[in-house]
Amino acid sequence: MNTQTLTNQVTNILNALLTQGVRDAILAPGSRSTPIALGLAQLARENKINLYVDVDERSAAFFALGISKTTSKPVLLLCTSGTAAANFYPAVCEAFSSHIPLIILTTDRPPELTRIGAPQALDQNCFYGHQVKKFYQLPLASDNFDECQYTSFVVQRCVIHATSHPFGPVHLNLPLRKPLMPQLPLSFMKKSKKLTRSKIKTSLAATDLADLSAAFFDKRGLIIMGPNEDQTNHNALLRWAENAGWPILADPLSQLRGIDSKNIISAYDILLKTQLPLLNDLKPDVIIRGGGTFVSANLGAWMKQLNVPNYYLDPNYELNDYTETLTNVLPLSADCFFESCPCPAPRRGWLNKWSQLQKEIKKGLASLNSKNQLDEPLIPRLLEHLLPIETHLFISNSMPIRDIDSYFLPQKKFRYLYCNRGANGIDGIISSALGMSSQFKNNLLLIGDLAFFHDMNGLMMAERYHLQLRIIVINNNGGGIFSFLPQASSIDFETIFGTPQDLEIKQVAQLYHARYIKADSIVAFADILQQPLHGLEIIEVPTNRTTNVRAHQAILQMIAQQLSKEF
Amino acid sequence: MNTQTLTNQVTNILNALLTQGVRDAILAPGSRSTPIALGLAQLARENKINLYVDVDERSAAFFALGISKTTSKPVLLLCTSGTAAANFYPAVCEAFSSHIPLIILTTDRPPELTRIGAPQALDQNCFYGHQVKKFYQLPLASDNFDECQYTSFVVQRCVIHATSHPFGPVHLNLPLRKPLMPQLPLSFMKKSKKLTRSKIKTSLAATDLADLSAAFFDKRGLIIMGPNEDQTNHNALLRWAENAGWPILADPLSQLRGIDSKNIISAYDILLKTQLPLLNDLKPDVIIRGGGTFVSANLGAWMKQLNVPNYYLDPNYELNDYTETLTNVLPLSADCFFESCPCPAPRRGWLNKWSQLQKEIKKGLASLNSKNQLDEPLIPRLLEHLLPIETHLFISNSMPIRDIDSYFLPQKKFRYLYCNRGANGIDGIISSALGMSSQFKNNLLLIGDLAFFHDMNGLMMAERYHLQLRIIVINNNGGGIFSFLPQASSIDFETIFGTPQDLEIKQVAQLYHARYIKADSIVAFADILQQPLHGLEIIEVPTNRTTNVRAHQAILQMIAQQLSKEF
Repeated sequence: MNTQTLTNQVTNILNALLTQGVRDAILAPGSRSTPIALGLAQLARENKINLYVDVDERSAAFFALGISKTTSKPVLLLCTSGTAAANFYPAVCEAFSSHIPLIILTTDRPPELTRIGAPQALDQNCFYGHQVKKFYQLPLASDNFDECQYTSFVVQRCVIHATSHPFGPVHLNLPLRKPLMPQLPLSFMKKSKKLTRSKIKTSLAATDLADLSAAFFDKRGLIIMGPNEDQTNHNALLRWAENAGWPILADPLSQLRGIDSKNIISAYDILLKTQLPLLNDLKPDVIIRGGGTFVSANLGAWMKQLNVPNYYLDPNYELNDYTETLTNVLPLSADCFFESCPCPAPRRGWLNKWSQLQKEIKKGLASLNSKNQLDEPLIPRLLEHLLPIETHLFISNSMPIRDIDSYFLPQKKFRYLYCNRGANGIDGIISSALGMSSQFKNNLLLIGDLAFFHDMNGLMMAERYHLQLRIIVINNNGGGIFSFLPQASSIDFETIFGTPQDLEIKQVAQLYHARYIKADSIVAFADILQQPLHGLEIIEVPTNRTTNVRAHQAILQMIAQQLSKEF
Repeated sequence: MNTQTLTNQVTNILNALLTQGVRDAILAPGSRSTPIALGLAQLARENKINLYVDVDERSAAFFALGISKTTSKPVLLLCTSGTAAANFYPAVCEAFSSHIPLIILTTDRPPELTRIGAPQALDQNCFYGHQVKKFYQLPLASDNFDECQYTSFVVQRCVIHATSHPFGPVHLNLPLRKPLMPQLPLSFMKKSKKLTRSKIKTSLAATDLADLSAAFFDKRGLIIMGPNEDQTNHNALLRWAENAGWPILADPLSQLRGIDSKNIISAYDILLKTQLPLLNDLKPDVIIRGGGTFVSANLGAWMKQLNVPNYYLDPNYELNDYTETLTNVLPLSADCFFESCPCPAPRRGWLNKWSQLQKEIKKGLASLNSKNQLDEPLIPRLLEHLLPIETHLFISNSMPIRDIDSYFLPQKKFRYLYCNRGANGIDGIISSALGMSSQFKNNLLLIGDLAFFHDMNGLMMAERYHLQLRIIVINNNGGGIFSFLPQASSIDFETIFGTPQDLEIKQVAQLYHARYIKADSIVAFADILQQPLHGLEIIEVPTNRTTNVRAHQAILQMIAQQLSKEF
């Protein structure tokens, strides 16, 4: 192939990505991706793009996800042909489920080397199946003007797809023929013809407004806000709820907890879990729900029993409602809805019921803080009290996010809480948190030992890019969540559920040149949290799976008793 | 759901797998897979199945691949719902490309919880796209007799699909509804109605034989045998080649190198790379090719120039021929072909030309053994001399398999050489080698530092299952293969191709409780290879990427000079 043709193609593709605002790229090195990789390296030297290189493609993809998740920007993910692309799959699935705009560019052999026994060649067509928003097979490098224009158009269009509601990953497969060396340096002088889109602001029509006003009039209403990781302004929602006197049940990932408003109710998970008769007084007449699927399974179970009108603010029109409680869908963002919908007058005493109960629960939980034993439920409590509010908090799936949901009820507003809640995997968590850390200074990851083990390779990026991350590893030596399930008494429990890995966290820290601290007391833990963070730090908190179940049960019992006594 | 119905379903599925001869299972733990996992644990206690538990699904799948690859038996791979299944994808792609009969059983949420925002639920339909032979969605547990029969039939049929030519992975997706606890212990008394298949032995018809005899009559013929990892008996091939006086170019994975026969030519890679004029005398009139795509790119390039009749023994009728040299395809195994095809009389001097050149090359390479410097090309030479022939050798992709191809020319027959040559990835190599190690006592893995890093999590299995594996890590601190490519002179080379990880192999060994030895001289290396192996052992051989390129070039020059002088 003509070197100039290849050079033009690389410039064309990278220009299209730059034109559409791609500023971060993750490269998993390989041979077939050579021309694009060299172009990215040049752009990085010219400070036009931030380039990260990660040799483990699984980690690389989750690192990209971490950046895109915390910036809401499209991030380029590049790899060579073959199983490299397959290692991206877990993060692609998470991105698809949680609406993260990854731009996945897999390079491929030219047509004459596919499905013909050539080395490192798979059928990369539609390689991610249903797990991407769009797939495009790009043409080979060509001198044909229309074909070049087409390539630029398709690449730009993919970024637009990825960043249009619902956001999500897109896959471009690029066949490249040898020789793979373009003429360097590339010349990025010429700008691509930019494909632009106008922003449309939707609003409610007068007829809708009349209906809604009637539906909400004189009702005990409840607002339930699920995960919402983009940094939207909640002013309209808060003003509306305050005027209507409606409680807002705030998922930890709603970014609403800790806001200074009496309407914010964070303590609902533990409250609903008590199953006390007093819950009968909390039944609403109507619900407005926004955001993604909330963390609390107790909230889901409770909603299922209610059988009341349930309005879902669903700008993506996804109709995702596994609780089967949805009655009306409003294809609008919460912002847009609460700005235009008229607010009903408050029902006396309704909000107060919730506030009083929350106050009592918080009081009960506060009494735990003076305990001597550093156990799992106490960790979110200590984070709540000791972390600066500008901390970027990444929470692992499995137990950590559940414990955060139940016990992290801050009085101050933490601005940034993240978790991979699309597919809820325990894979790639370290890399996702490090992707976040590439954007900010003050970062903390709360993770269990199994999820930590799963993505240890991800730690490699911390030193290379001088990232700042404090990792709290709750080490109960195995799958702690299974001890809460019916199989806990099975004779095969330890072998197939408990699965202790006997991982020596300290050695892992040494391997990756991280600062290591073991925190086995409240005092030690509190002390570490208040120290300044430099680089990568791993704090091991040893806990025990069996006593952990008992600690959770004891707290529930204590809260239930206290509430029964007071109400 | 009824517990008895679930219990019957689990028994039914496991019975079907047992009936079709599945004896090894790998479980990546999770919640949704609970009933099947409990059933497998019981079967393991009853010694009816070998159960391995691996918490990192990527490693787990490659471990399963390693077992299946070295036993040619179907191996069950089980996981929970969500991204767990996505982590299997790299090994699934390798299995599909290299015809390994993995039985992938992913568990899933019931219909009412899919695509509706329920946690940890992806669309698992056709989840592996084109990369599996068959996909079946299993029904939910049911009391309906026909449906139960159907489930048993589909599971059995999947194992048959997986183990019919061309072998390959199959995917079963099993939705399970809570509660997930079956009644234990399961009763496996009742055998499933077994689906059986008759073996058909194909042969050549008389008309074909006449054609072939004519085509081979009085020809300088060449047999090229590519990778073939099942332990077939090569008697018919060897007898035929010896009678016809045809050389057999034996890929390192053909399991033919080192056989005591003057027809076996192993030194072709380096010979063809010299591009000496004497290669003109080696041009054959006709080629018979068997096995998969051979490792040597030099052989491929040479074949492209030949333009001679080329018969491909292709029992899978895959027509995979990226060299574009195939002229006739024979849908027969090598065994079957060489047993029935009449053998032509030999052409005088033809085999001798090849043998003489090989002898000279071996002499040249032998002179290297007295060098002081332990460099990369010397490692295969030392393995060839020092390893016992019963060693099970797993070779990583990238440089190790290429170096084995060029420099591993044993005089004795090593029975077992394995490499993931379907998709040629550097992912999952440790786990694949450990899967192999679960079957044998004397195991060795040759791997570079990047591939070693990629699958370090895989090491966790060694201690848990008391596996025996000696790992030789050739540590040139980065991607050594790229130094052979045109980009070696790029100013961005180290950042995007060299990618030194500065991995401290000794610390990794400590973390996984492996014996660690650094071998920085020939004497030290030879000494270690002769010591008995106990458990997991990691031998680090430090090398240098730049001097490695020069060492390869120097050997080529030395051989070329010697051949020019002698012939």
